[in-house]
Amino acid sequence: MYGNRSEDPDASDRPSLPDRRFAALRGCERLLSGVRPQSIRERLADLAGPLPDAAPEPGAAPEPADAPEQAGAPAPDGAGGPPAVPDLDGRPDQYGDGVVRTLEQRVAELLGTEDAVFFPTGTMAQQVALRIHAEAAGPRTVATHPLAHTDRHERHALGVLSGLRTLWPTTEPRQPTAEELRALDEPYAALSLELPLRDAGFVLPGWPELVELAAVVREEHGAALHLDGARIWESAVALGRPLPEVTALADSVYISFYKTLGGISGAALVGRGGFVRTARAWRHRYGGQLYQQWPFALAALTGLERELPRLPEYVAHARTVAGALVRAFAAVPGARVHPAPPHTHQFQLWLPYRAGELEEAGLGLAEDTGIGLFGAWRECGPPGLAMTEVTVAAPALDWTGADVAVAAAAFLDRLPPGRS
Amino acid sequence: MYGNRSEDPDASDRPSLPDRRFAALRGCERLLSGVRPQSIRERLADLAGPLPDAAPEPGAAPEPADAPEQAGAPAPDGAGGPPAVPDLDGRPDQYGDGVVRTLEQRVAELLGTEDAVFFPTGTMAQQVALRIHAEAAGPRTVATHPLAHTDRHERHALGVLSGLRTLWPTTEPRQPTAEELRALDEPYAALSLELPLRDAGFVLPGWPELVELAAVVREEHGAALHLDGARIWESAVALGRPLPEVTALADSVYISFYKTLGGISGAALVGRGGFVRTARAWRHRYGGQLYQQWPFALAALTGLERELPRLPEYVAHARTVAGALVRAFAAVPGARVHPAPPHTHQFQLWLPYRAGELEEAGLGLAEDTGIGLFGAWRECGPPGLAMTEVTVAAPALDWTGADVAVAAAAFLDRLPPGRS
Repeated sequence: MYGNRSEDPDASDRPSLPDRRFAALRGCERLLSGVRPQSIRERLADLAGPLPDAAPEPGAAPEPADAPEQAGAPAPDGAGGPPAVPDLDGRPDQYGDGVVRTLEQRVAELLGTEDAVFFPTGTMAQQVALRIHAEAAGPRTVATHPLAHTDRHERHALGVLSGLRTLWPTTEPRQPTAEELRALDEPYAALSLELPLRDAGFVLPGWPELVELAAVVREEHGAALHLDGARIWESAVALGRPLPEVTALADSVYISFYKTLGGISGAALVGRGGFVRTARAWRHRYGGQLYQQWPFALAALTGLERELPRLPEYVAHARTVAGALVRAFAAVPGARVHPAPPHTHQFQLWLPYRAGELEEAGLGLAEDTGIGLFGAWRECGPPGLAMTEVTVAAPALDWTGADVAVAAAAFLDRLPPGRS
Repeated sequence: MYGNRSEDPDASDRPSLPDRRFAALRGCERLLSGVRPQSIRERLADLAGPLPDAAPEPGAAPEPADAPEQAGAPAPDGAGGPPAVPDLDGRPDQYGDGVVRTLEQRVAELLGTEDAVFFPTGTMAQQVALRIHAEAAGPRTVATHPLAHTDRHERHALGVLSGLRTLWPTTEPRQPTAEELRALDEPYAALSLELPLRDAGFVLPGWPELVELAAVVREEHGAALHLDGARIWESAVALGRPLPEVTALADSVYISFYKTLGGISGAALVGRGGFVRTARAWRHRYGGQLYQQWPFALAALTGLERELPRLPEYVAHARTVAGALVRAFAAVPGARVHPAPPHTHQFQLWLPYRAGELEEAGLGLAEDTGIGLFGAWRECGPPGLAMTEVTVAAPALDWTGADVAVAAAAFLDRLPPGRS
């Protein structure tokens, strides 16, 4: 996990899997999932360059035949506003002023909240948000989901470090319902809702369901609604609502800068002024008040200008790509695109092979033909199946359904025979 | 604190004090304290450039007449070793591999420990270290100092977040003694010793005292010794010992990359392999497992190559500068250099004026003459006195005692009459 090589003496001559994937995808002319990985030198040049023109390239619009209902959804509110241009000839930030404060103000403006506070990680940001809600409400209990990041990927920090108990309205791999919330038999301080629920396949509630959930939490239960909005950007697009309309449902929202927006690292909490002030105090205690963070802030500002306006295209085109993958793997027993159609610009693809076989087929195809289809594969479900998460971003926009079909057939040709 | 301007309508036309200081010190031809502040653009160029030649400039050696006993101390062990050169054309780190792992290995090598783990802040690193010692030992009590960073500048996080009680062997503004440790009437899991104790004036114990403290903690009390080694680099120089000999006294050491070494942000914990593995787990829970941290790691590697070999010069020359300041302000009632002579390359200077008057005199001198003497002033002691921390680094090396005397006289001329 920390870059240690195997003890196998031959291993030192072979690149690690991440290094091999980095080289293979950088060499590709076309990428279906994700973006071309950049070297450290390229990222540095990007930070020093001017903020890019956010206008989409000509011809990058989704095919009309596949345009989903969300294609007409408004761009996230404020995304077309004046960019917050940092002064590269000014001084670096110190403990959150300067370019970090510029980023916080830009985020609060985009999300329509009173204030925002930068955090180094979502793991810290969400513990702080839920702790504040718990201390205001009394019970140190929060309602979460067993597939949420807080419950699954943070070494139980909510309980172990922050002293919060969790209640699960549902354990099904989907968003909870208002009825399930009403059926909880213990008081809770806050519901934490991950939008979309990544480990269930980036699934969202419908807009009416989300509004009802918020009403149950806030009006019937007198609790707080916290949104894990690491992917709030595309969630708003998929829900067909401006960002401020989504955040207005909640008492606090965590957002991330390095996933959809392509930043380096970093997150933020948004909410009312008093909440954000208290979050700054707890951020200090958790060790999140860094001396300088200008590289993270610069990259996040670039992501807000460059990626945010393009998300409606990505979300719309994901349906084209997902539909083509369903058809391409229709004859493969057990193959599955989930959800179909996708809710955002990300979705799961399941195929009946070992992860290593699928990695090798994809890397071989990329290395031999310059066509990169998928990222990493994991065996995390039923035996005999492996899963990859497909992310439809700028490089996928010029893939037609026919392009996907041809590349998928070439990919299948590289897999061991007999199981498809 | 977070960059908010005053409501005074005239204030928006005036630069903030940090912005004015940044501009004034950048315009200086000569600096006595600290280093010339860099803009974001300069720092980016520095990250993209080759690692600098660590050889000192000709003529930068301290004056022989003032050379202290430490002048002959060995350079920190390994400082002359081969640099760990990061591959800028490689991929960025992910969750601590790549260039971050390179930095960790370099630090473990320099300090002579089994392993090292990068942290975003010292506030997080030290809570993790002391928590691990407490959980191994049983009592959730650690011995600290009321002037230590953990006790003074972290919003009581040791207790509030990490559930650790503190015991103070002494409240005097100096390092504790072995006798004071022996007199503690409660068991404790670890002694946390800040080297040097910054808020007491960057004061160190002598080497024999440090060895005795370690023996009492580890042998007599069966507790762990943790070093707050944010400034371990110059502490080893001043103690006249190689870095590994200092760290060998302790069970864990926290080190910082952005103070003496001039990095962007970041810290590390070093110790035995098992300790470091557990520290990684807790780092994750505190929210310190960032997606990418290559800017911090690159800047830290540069600092290790550029600054570490020069620290013996800085520590030696600090005695010259401090002695000249003592003489320059000898006629000013209440003026004080502390400690005299300084223990490291940093020390306090106290003068009988308001902080604002001293700031204005220093900024005016810098703006009018290109000579920068001091950084920020604070009123943190007896009424009528303000204090600045003087840092003797590369820009101060060519200042003779006579240069200091001339500049200090010009500085005094700009202060209000009647109080000196």
